[in-house]
Amino acid sequence: MVKKVLKFGGTSVGTTERIQIVAKIIQKERSLGNKIIAIVSAMAGKTNDLIKLSEEITNEFNKRELDVLLSSGEQVTSALLSGALIKLNIKAKSWLNWQIPILTDGDHANSRIITMHVEKINKYLDDGGVSIIPGFQGISKFGDVTTIGRGGSDATAVAVAKIFNADSCEIYTDVDGVFSTDPNKIPVAKKIDSISYDEMLELSSLGAKVMQSSAVQTAMMYDIPLEVRSTFTERKGTKIINKEKIDYTKSVTGVAYSKNDAKITIVGVEDRPGVAANIFEPLSKAQINVDMVIQNISSDQKTTDITFTVKRDDVSKTKQILKDNSKINYKEIIKNDRVAKVSIVGAGMVTTPGVTYKMFRALSDVGINILAISTSEIKLSVIIQENNILQAIKKLHTTFDLD
Amino acid sequence: MVKKVLKFGGTSVGTTERIQIVAKIIQKERSLGNKIIAIVSAMAGKTNDLIKLSEEITNEFNKRELDVLLSSGEQVTSALLSGALIKLNIKAKSWLNWQIPILTDGDHANSRIITMHVEKINKYLDDGGVSIIPGFQGISKFGDVTTIGRGGSDATAVAVAKIFNADSCEIYTDVDGVFSTDPNKIPVAKKIDSISYDEMLELSSLGAKVMQSSAVQTAMMYDIPLEVRSTFTERKGTKIINKEKIDYTKSVTGVAYSKNDAKITIVGVEDRPGVAANIFEPLSKAQINVDMVIQNISSDQKTTDITFTVKRDDVSKTKQILKDNSKINYKEIIKNDRVAKVSIVGAGMVTTPGVTYKMFRALSDVGINILAISTSEIKLSVIIQENNILQAIKKLHTTFDLD
Repeated sequence: MVKKVLKFGGTSVGTTERIQIVAKIIQKERSLGNKIIAIVSAMAGKTNDLIKLSEEITNEFNKRELDVLLSSGEQVTSALLSGALIKLNIKAKSWLNWQIPILTDGDHANSRIITMHVEKINKYLDDGGVSIIPGFQGISKFGDVTTIGRGGSDATAVAVAKIFNADSCEIYTDVDGVFSTDPNKIPVAKKIDSISYDEMLELSSLGAKVMQSSAVQTAMMYDIPLEVRSTFTERKGTKIINKEKIDYTKSVTGVAYSKNDAKITIVGVEDRPGVAANIFEPLSKAQINVDMVIQNISSDQKTTDITFTVKRDDVSKTKQILKDNSKINYKEIIKNDRVAKVSIVGAGMVTTPGVTYKMFRALSDVGINILAISTSEIKLSVIIQENNILQAIKKLHTTFDLD
Repeated sequence: MVKKVLKFGGTSVGTTERIQIVAKIIQKERSLGNKIIAIVSAMAGKTNDLIKLSEEITNEFNKRELDVLLSSGEQVTSALLSGALIKLNIKAKSWLNWQIPILTDGDHANSRIITMHVEKINKYLDDGGVSIIPGFQGISKFGDVTTIGRGGSDATAVAVAKIFNADSCEIYTDVDGVFSTDPNKIPVAKKIDSISYDEMLELSSLGAKVMQSSAVQTAMMYDIPLEVRSTFTERKGTKIINKEKIDYTKSVTGVAYSKNDAKITIVGVEDRPGVAANIFEPLSKAQINVDMVIQNISSDQKTTDITFTVKRDDVSKTKQILKDNSKINYKEIIKNDRVAKVSIVGAGMVTTPGVTYKMFRALSDVGINILAISTSEIKLSVIIQENNILQAIKKLHTTFDLD
């Protein structure tokens, strides 16, 4: 008998039919004698519907009231799932944010969970009851409703697993787990059995939308084993665990990509200390997320070229900010918004020599030009022309034995 | 400066556009310096949508969880209205059932409000803030969410008016007020300026859906002046007040009708004590609401005929229960489910002789046959053939000077 936290995302509870599938999963867990705390998201589309209502009134909807509004979505799912379990003769109860309570640091729209009261729920679990908790929310010490950011139900699940000292935390979603690359694009993509927290974080930041990053971070920090699995199949999912526990036979775990990038080069920038800061400070203040930065010394050795990538939506804003920036001098700004980023990720990369060379050679073999490179301990990203993206992913997937 | 409770029903807050109309009404009240507590219903259709979701899972949805589910509807409206007020630079705040808290007697689906904490909200009102309270709900002393029955937002409004000692309680809805009869059917129907609690109760029980009956009862008990008025026009509404304060120039205030009735006659029932109890006890246990009951002695003086009316939906169930009832003997059961009820209501009837006669004469003048009669102190109802209903209302409306 173990204590499990099961989290069900928006698509898993998107209809009452699906909520009843979720109830059957919990029924099975109960038949094994496991103690179950279920964390639920709002029904798919519901949070967006509520946001739309608020935007019909104003785009600057009061944050306190937006949290009151949005938190209703998970409340609805909690009640429906609880009712579905009781229909199956399973003892179950929804616990709203204030009934537990879940205490947060009080920021609206972006709170962090600080603590929860465990006694009542632990007693209820001991008595054989399933506890349903709405994800994504809590209350501040002043008794205001506070939400914890989009995708926050993952964070609630991990926090509950930690605070209730659960044996495992299972993230139920609409895919079978984490894949070596996008299975919709590359049919030979394979489900990964185990992946380390670090690798998962790199994949998440590269656009794999399986789990919210900050939840993975929290799990890593407290060494809480996660499993991502499908609500709609019985297949095993992907375990996200400490890398010491993973037997790495492969240097590369997955190939990720994002197609939403643009490359900007500032040609002929004065080469002196502080220039980079002068360039990037105003961008950061304007909430523009700069991804890769490469600096080359130019031919005259007094100026340099600085290349960086941003999200495609931010290109014109970025150009304007650079033009308005009186602190920098340069010859010209070149932009290319038809680029994409391909990354290989793997905790085994650190100990495998030649991965970098192998990647560059593979791309060169199929005639793909690399426009920029960025590396981290467990990740290697390159920027290439957007039209090469599919070929690049296929080639790398094969090169690193992932097919 | 007065303290007002304003209640906005489902159609008044049915869209974000309408919620902004409501915000403007409150803005006007604030510009007059009035202290405002607003009670809101769920957006029109929302509660039914939520009930439908629960019914997709089971028709016997757990009552505790149904209350958690349904209470989310008013929470959404509270947040939206509060956000709309803040957009107009009006200090405002939603107060959820547990934040106040609103304490109920703890019955699920059918609770009564026992008390509320007033200090925090009174302080907020003193500081110039508008308090938005979700109608239809509260929490039990065990901290469970409890709702107070359909239309319960009216009851919340009256309870808030009483507990906060408000100067008035205004019920905003989608009609201009209470009418002398159905304005959709009878174009000469007139809005009533003032009506007594008793009359309003009679009209409500006869199908005028302007206000929930138990809310009117509470207002009567504590002498809380109500006003029913339209969210969408500036016209004066109908005041519902103590009858001592009404100057009755007319004996009859309104003509009500219901078309959903059926008449059942049990012919030749044994005429001895306890027979009526034997007939009606099983019906009551089956939740069948018996309205009018008439008993005639039949020709042989040993048996009697008992006629009563029920809702049309209950006819076949009623016949079956009568047939299964071994405690009664009778010759036959005759049913007529093409009947309707017309009533005249007026606190002035008590002191005006001849109202009964005048009604019967009026109907007889237009050739309408009366099938059954029932009277109370301020109401006179008759059962007639359904196809006569419109003619009957028109005739009575004219006869009693209501045009």
